[in-house]
Amino acid sequence: MLTMQDALARLTAYWTDQGCLIVQPMNTEVGAGTLNPATFLRVLGPEPWRVVYPEPSVRPDDSRYGENPNRLQTHTQLQVILKPDPGNPQELYLGSLAAIGIDVTAHDVRFVEDNWASPALGAWGLGWEVWLDGLEITQFTYFQQAGGLNLDPVSVEITYGIERIIMALQDKTHFKEIEYSPGVSYGEVFGQSEYEMSRYYLDDADIDANRRLLEIYAAEAQRMIDAGLPVPAHSYVLKCSQAFNVLDSRGAVSTADRAAEFARMRRLAGEVARLWVDRRTELGLPLGTITPPDAARPAAAVQTGDGERTLVFEIGTEELPPSELRSAREQVRRLLTDGLAATRLSHGEVRVFGTPRRLIAVVTAVAARESDHVRTVKGPKRQAAYGGDGAPTKALEGFLRGQGVTIDRAEIEDVNGVPHVVVRKHEAGRAAPTVLAAVLAQVVTGLRAAKNMRWNDPKLAFSRPLRWLTALWGDDVVPVAVSTLAAGRRTRLLRTAVPPHADIDAAETFLETLGVNGIVADHADRRELIVIGAQDLVYPDGRIDVTGEAALIDQITDLVEQPLPLLGTFDESYLSLPDAVLTTVMRKHQRYLPVRDADGALLPMFVTVANGPVDVELVRAGNEAVLRARYEDAAFFYRADLETPLAEMRSHLNRLTFTDRLGSMADRADRIANLALTVADRQKIGTPVLNRAAELLKFDLGSQLVTEMTSLAGVMARDYALHAGEDRAVAQAVYEAELPRNTGDALPSSAAGAVLSLADRLDLVTGLAATVGLPTGSSDPFAVRRAVLGLLAVHRATPALAGFSLADGLELAAAAQPVPVSPEVLAACSEFLTRRLEQVLTEEGHPVDRVRAVLPHAARPALADGLLARLGTAVTDPGFLAVAAAIQRARRIVPADTPAGYDPSVLKEPAELALHAAVTAVTVPSEPDLESFVTATRPLVEPVGTFFDEVFVMADDPVLRAARLGLLATVRDLGEGLLDWAHLRL
Amino acid sequence: MLTMQDALARLTAYWTDQGCLIVQPMNTEVGAGTLNPATFLRVLGPEPWRVVYPEPSVRPDDSRYGENPNRLQTHTQLQVILKPDPGNPQELYLGSLAAIGIDVTAHDVRFVEDNWASPALGAWGLGWEVWLDGLEITQFTYFQQAGGLNLDPVSVEITYGIERIIMALQDKTHFKEIEYSPGVSYGEVFGQSEYEMSRYYLDDADIDANRRLLEIYAAEAQRMIDAGLPVPAHSYVLKCSQAFNVLDSRGAVSTADRAAEFARMRRLAGEVARLWVDRRTELGLPLGTITPPDAARPAAAVQTGDGERTLVFEIGTEELPPSELRSAREQVRRLLTDGLAATRLSHGEVRVFGTPRRLIAVVTAVAARESDHVRTVKGPKRQAAYGGDGAPTKALEGFLRGQGVTIDRAEIEDVNGVPHVVVRKHEAGRAAPTVLAAVLAQVVTGLRAAKNMRWNDPKLAFSRPLRWLTALWGDDVVPVAVSTLAAGRRTRLLRTAVPPHADIDAAETFLETLGVNGIVADHADRRELIVIGAQDLVYPDGRIDVTGEAALIDQITDLVEQPLPLLGTFDESYLSLPDAVLTTVMRKHQRYLPVRDADGALLPMFVTVANGPVDVELVRAGNEAVLRARYEDAAFFYRADLETPLAEMRSHLNRLTFTDRLGSMADRADRIANLALTVADRQKIGTPVLNRAAELLKFDLGSQLVTEMTSLAGVMARDYALHAGEDRAVAQAVYEAELPRNTGDALPSSAAGAVLSLADRLDLVTGLAATVGLPTGSSDPFAVRRAVLGLLAVHRATPALAGFSLADGLELAAAAQPVPVSPEVLAACSEFLTRRLEQVLTEEGHPVDRVRAVLPHAARPALADGLLARLGTAVTDPGFLAVAAAIQRARRIVPADTPAGYDPSVLKEPAELALHAAVTAVTVPSEPDLESFVTATRPLVEPVGTFFDEVFVMADDPVLRAARLGLLATVRDLGEGLLDWAHLRL
Repeated sequence: MLTMQDALARLTAYWTDQGCLIVQPMNTEVGAGTLNPATFLRVLGPEPWRVVYPEPSVRPDDSRYGENPNRLQTHTQLQVILKPDPGNPQELYLGSLAAIGIDVTAHDVRFVEDNWASPALGAWGLGWEVWLDGLEITQFTYFQQAGGLNLDPVSVEITYGIERIIMALQDKTHFKEIEYSPGVSYGEVFGQSEYEMSRYYLDDADIDANRRLLEIYAAEAQRMIDAGLPVPAHSYVLKCSQAFNVLDSRGAVSTADRAAEFARMRRLAGEVARLWVDRRTELGLPLGTITPPDAARPAAAVQTGDGERTLVFEIGTEELPPSELRSAREQVRRLLTDGLAATRLSHGEVRVFGTPRRLIAVVTAVAARESDHVRTVKGPKRQAAYGGDGAPTKALEGFLRGQGVTIDRAEIEDVNGVPHVVVRKHEAGRAAPTVLAAVLAQVVTGLRAAKNMRWNDPKLAFSRPLRWLTALWGDDVVPVAVSTLAAGRRTRLLRTAVPPHADIDAAETFLETLGVNGIVADHADRRELIVIGAQDLVYPDGRIDVTGEAALIDQITDLVEQPLPLLGTFDESYLSLPDAVLTTVMRKHQRYLPVRDADGALLPMFVTVANGPVDVELVRAGNEAVLRARYEDAAFFYRADLETPLAEMRSHLNRLTFTDRLGSMADRADRIANLALTVADRQKIGTPVLNRAAELLKFDLGSQLVTEMTSLAGVMARDYALHAGEDRAVAQAVYEAELPRNTGDALPSSAAGAVLSLADRLDLVTGLAATVGLPTGSSDPFAVRRAVLGLLAVHRATPALAGFSLADGLELAAAAQPVPVSPEVLAACSEFLTRRLEQVLTEEGHPVDRVRAVLPHAARPALADGLLARLGTAVTDPGFLAVAAAIQRARRIVPADTPAGYDPSVLKEPAELALHAAVTAVTVPSEPDLESFVTATRPLVEPVGTFFDEVFVMADDPVLRAARLGLLATVRDLGEGLLDWAHLRL
Repeated sequence: MLTMQDALARLTAYWTDQGCLIVQPMNTEVGAGTLNPATFLRVLGPEPWRVVYPEPSVRPDDSRYGENPNRLQTHTQLQVILKPDPGNPQELYLGSLAAIGIDVTAHDVRFVEDNWASPALGAWGLGWEVWLDGLEITQFTYFQQAGGLNLDPVSVEITYGIERIIMALQDKTHFKEIEYSPGVSYGEVFGQSEYEMSRYYLDDADIDANRRLLEIYAAEAQRMIDAGLPVPAHSYVLKCSQAFNVLDSRGAVSTADRAAEFARMRRLAGEVARLWVDRRTELGLPLGTITPPDAARPAAAVQTGDGERTLVFEIGTEELPPSELRSAREQVRRLLTDGLAATRLSHGEVRVFGTPRRLIAVVTAVAARESDHVRTVKGPKRQAAYGGDGAPTKALEGFLRGQGVTIDRAEIEDVNGVPHVVVRKHEAGRAAPTVLAAVLAQVVTGLRAAKNMRWNDPKLAFSRPLRWLTALWGDDVVPVAVSTLAAGRRTRLLRTAVPPHADIDAAETFLETLGVNGIVADHADRRELIVIGAQDLVYPDGRIDVTGEAALIDQITDLVEQPLPLLGTFDESYLSLPDAVLTTVMRKHQRYLPVRDADGALLPMFVTVANGPVDVELVRAGNEAVLRARYEDAAFFYRADLETPLAEMRSHLNRLTFTDRLGSMADRADRIANLALTVADRQKIGTPVLNRAAELLKFDLGSQLVTEMTSLAGVMARDYALHAGEDRAVAQAVYEAELPRNTGDALPSSAAGAVLSLADRLDLVTGLAATVGLPTGSSDPFAVRRAVLGLLAVHRATPALAGFSLADGLELAAAAQPVPVSPEVLAACSEFLTRRLEQVLTEEGHPVDRVRAVLPHAARPALADGLLARLGTAVTDPGFLAVAAAIQRARRIVPADTPAGYDPSVLKEPAELALHAAVTAVTVPSEPDLESFVTATRPLVEPVGTFFDEVFVMADDPVLRAARLGLLATVRDLGEGLLDWAHLRL
């Protein structure tokens, strides 16, 4: 059996064979190998660097007294840095797995999107978690920035989680059982330390002492920065980080503390990074600099046929994130279609496919050549081209010489009405490969991702590295070359294929070749294989909710090239965990499909989808072990939480700060509770259930499970409340207070839940508006937009709240904030609500004009809803249309500042007198009710029509004109308070 | 070329092959691998443990900005722990050197005494520095105690200094040039960090911040101890240590701070250790316990001859320290001689030899058997043995039965005058091997060292492990067995011999066999080889000062078994360093013999003595490189010091605390200076030279070189003073102020030097007496005894001080102390001086009675000296003898409390009247001058003799008796103030 220390030695030896040097772990506590100066400092600047080292990584938050089988406060990372990116780091990495005896052809090894960012270090990178049969064993990152500096060259960071790898290899279910060295278990070596350090981090560390340490460390870091010494400064930044982590694990860090501390560390780390770069530059870059790779030379342009042939173009990538893959497919389609359109090459259908490792465009019937073409070249004006004697001027001679033609080719043509000399040149269409090469190059350079990265290519940027190009027109290679990539006829297959590549004879056989080698290029095909395969696997006992899991299935589909659904099981005992816990783990953490019985109850099984041919039993067992570990972890928290009184969990909210100026989470929960009770009182929907639910509100934020899996907030509250013997309705209300959690989520079904949910969101928006401001642009860190959308949805869905004005709600919420909320802020909040309502109603398909017409009632969205519904029928009602037309006509004629009211004695024309009489007779209902309004105003239809037909409003007599305008303003104002008539298009 | 990282990997692999597990370096700064819990905690308790790990060891004090070629603030240790001692750790260690390509047969690998102790950890062990061609490459220690706990089993700790080893292997002269990994130098990897961390430790660390850190760490350590968590507590103890070291390197630690901090750390470390042991015991000793090795079975007792044969007995050891070797030779001689004397085995001469690895006893002509013997066994008294009828009583019968004899063997013999029944038993002498086995076993178990240690033997203890026994009587193995050791005929040769052992046929050939294999058993023989060899090597240009270096030569002689003197050279440029610096390095650090020319000037060469056959060129080059590195180091400090103004060095004394209550070294130097000036004033020997020397006094304690090599204090002061342009006499006086530094050292030749030296020592003794107390028993941490001996020597050697009373000196010194010095303390100081003078004078060969007679003048030792000299001649002067006899006779007769003086009118006898007249005529000189006294008292001789002959002092008449006693008391008191007559034996 490979012991843990052997594995470390073998990996180290493997990487030293790849030119890495070995350094020692950092001699101050660090949370990850990334923090070691051998990574953090060395990835900066232009010097090359290759290093491998173990790093015992201390995560106080992961302390579990050594009881949790999978989580340790100190685990062992093996860290590798390759600077620059060697171009094949994934392949090198797979070689390292082989070096510790992992058969990558038998296991399901996957690169699953995982972008890394450390706000405290001003660092980020794009990359993957590497999964071994569903188990995350490695973090693989292309480092883009550190200390706020862009990295050039980019470094590849490979971080192995050694304990996890070894547990998998040794088939152990508890880290303590790892065979660490021959005959000595991990628990024997580290078990006591694990327990005792957990005690320190969770229970015994002195908070005040660690606060003081943090301040001293930060001060020393700053002093060393001021002294121009990045190395000791960095060491103190790391000490800051550890002290902070200790405080955090002791529950002594508020949200505000966290933000402030991250800001400080980010600033310090940034200064350290800049200093380091300066210092290395001063020292003359002792390790030298890197020569970027040369640009690739395109293949020779060869064209062997002249019939129409298929074009196939493959852009080989490292594993793309599913969302980027979807976007990239569309981009390729557009770029290629547009590019071809700008040529004179005839072609058939453009189809685009994609897998995580490739984007494929197939274009049928691409002509061998562009069509020929006559091009008119404009020369001098005619009058400047010929002298008085009709002889060519020097200008004309120069033009003709420049075009390489004689005077017999000169013609005259009007250009913008002025006669010019022109030359017509016949241009033969270029050969397809040449034309295509240019188009395809633009496809490659035109690709962009939501988040782009750099790798070893000096010019390209994309979601993940582009590694190869395959381009064929029929039998011929399209000689496209972009930066370091030149297309050929070779494509790459699954990395486990032998050989892992294939040479394509002709474009027409490309997809077939991929297919023969197991790669399913088309998303739809892969999806079908997954859905049918999964359904087969669970038949007849289980069901896959194909509709409910559509998004997950789409994601899974874009994580594989050759889908292989596998059925796994887990111990039935875990079914005692809440459904949401089980499925959250399956979906979010593992991308497994849950399996339910006919009644919708979870079955102790799951479907996972492997990539390509693997040893099914091995991969199944691996995935089962991973899920077991995850469930064990969840069960650990769940049990602990169940043993904790609700009030105690609620009391933990005191140590969670909501924001700096808005107090703790407990303060916020109190505010929400009070607001909810006030609203309920006004609406006369107060109940004992609401009272109790208000007391419990958000208590589960103080539970361990929700701390770990924040998406379960509310769900766990209900579960824990029920276990604690609370009334079912109370439990439900506490749960519903968190609804909706995102667009499309369920809404509170009870009035208690609804009023709590509403109060929550009113508190959020007013408090944040008064402190950090309402969101602008794409930045919305506190998800205020989502909260407001939720608030509107709840209000609209809750009849008991229909009469409650959100304007009042905002005012009440504002009054309860610990900071003053100015009238301007309150107005901005109202406006913000209105704009969101406009957005929602529009997205629901209502014509935008009608939406805008009802927006004056945004504070009572139910009212707006009613009006919108009525408007839908009203627009077919001639009476309404007539009244509306009258009102709008009056609006257009009457200046906006003209008040209603007039002197009736001035009126003289019968039509205006009739209208005066009708207007005077109308009583508009006080409530904004479209039907009553139409009924009430129907008598106006006819006199208004007559008035406009017969009366000239703008009479010369100013008195008369004023009276007529006043009369129309009165008509106009009849609709005031009902709709914003200005927007209504009829 | 073997890179540094390869060397680490190979050593690690070698030790894992020996069953070591690998752990990672400590994730907080440590000064040595010993501090890692994998050593400090794991050596405690009964569980087995084998581990290897690298440990970047941080020594802030060693910071040199990366400029010094051999010293780094962070160097790399490779640490190995073998628990229990495997019995052959030295051989395993040599195997590890081979694993990194060191040919141990070509190099001179030596185990040189180096006992390790960490007061701060309550830890100590005995062992060696391992030298590779004179370079210390490894610390090898048998751990005896940690955290104040005795270790059972004992662990072997092997600590490699990797940079040093690699520099030697790669033939580099600066650590930065080490090839760390292929193509990458050490400087490139660590150079910047070395510079910056040096800056931090030497210049930039915030003292106040680090003080606060130290306090916080200590408090957390204590809290964790109180919480019963040794692991985090230990981590905080280490942080304390680092913070302390930072303060120290910033010059912010006084002697008092140091003592207090060490005490605190020792206490904390002790509590951590005890807690750890408790915790492991509670956990049931997860790693099991160790079975101690079985006792050895002795060889079969075989005797093949019956003539006299030689006995040879060899006790094989690991390398003994030279002083212990000398002592052990004597012990073996005594134990064996006494042991044989207690047998009836006749034998010839007992000779004992020793090398570092063996103690050998050779006894010629040992008889084959003990002589036979008749033993008389005492029975009952005769009267109890026979009844009235003459028949044997039951008592007699029982006795005879017990002795296994019949009544015809009963005889009668007087025992203490009482007739008893006895039985005489003839006992045959036992065979020599049997007798010798018992005697030799007692030799082994009787061995004791000044400092004893334990190893894997459950019963033995000695200076270093005993590893084998060889014992032969003639051809036969003497079947001695002690604990795990059983003697045989196999001896071990040099470790590099092939094979490394030899079987001895007969005792008579033992020494020859050793000799043939190069081992010179006899110290005298080895010494001669060294002296002659060294002289040959330097002939004709150089000289070895065989007399002056006698102690060093003796030491060298006991560091080798097969001496091989080698001549090495060093660069002449180093001769610009002071002679004392060069020779201190040679003698103390390297055990090299300095070579001088005919004028006594140092030549740029040295003689070192290798052990056994080596590659001479290789070993020479290695030793030269070591010396170069040492000199480079010294030159670094020397240059820095020369650039520092004297006043600045003197100002550094402010930050060196002398003791807690006695202020800084600067305070002490000020006190000494003032006292010296006062004394000089009194004795009228004040000079400008003294004034200036007093100002400079001890300034070199603030220099870097003296900080490194404290034995050069004074010497460097003179050197630096001269370089700074001070008057030669001033420089000499500042130097002489430190004399004498030890017994037999030179004394000040100038009055200025003498008075400073005297003042120094007066200050020391009074200050310490008043604070920590005068030394008692063997503990004398401040070397007060040595100071007082020096004080006396200076006083006696300085005529200008002869008239100065040390009693006054003590009083003056006492008055200047920052603490009150009570009269009792002052009296104790006087008494302490007196006792030391008594000791000195006695050791100089003066009869103890005369010494005691002059001790009343101890405060003026010169006076005591003079009196002693006079006494030497006086004792042959009949006049003095007569007077002395009279005085002593008077003292014996007259009660001690009888005052001198009497009523002369009461006297009546002519003899008493004559004595009265003579006494009245005598005038004793006021100065204690023996000659004048004798002359003055000579007229008393005759009347005193007559008085005693003729007068009966104790007359019945009380008045008369009183007068006669008073007369005698007057005679008695004539000698008062001159000598303590009571002690004088004539």
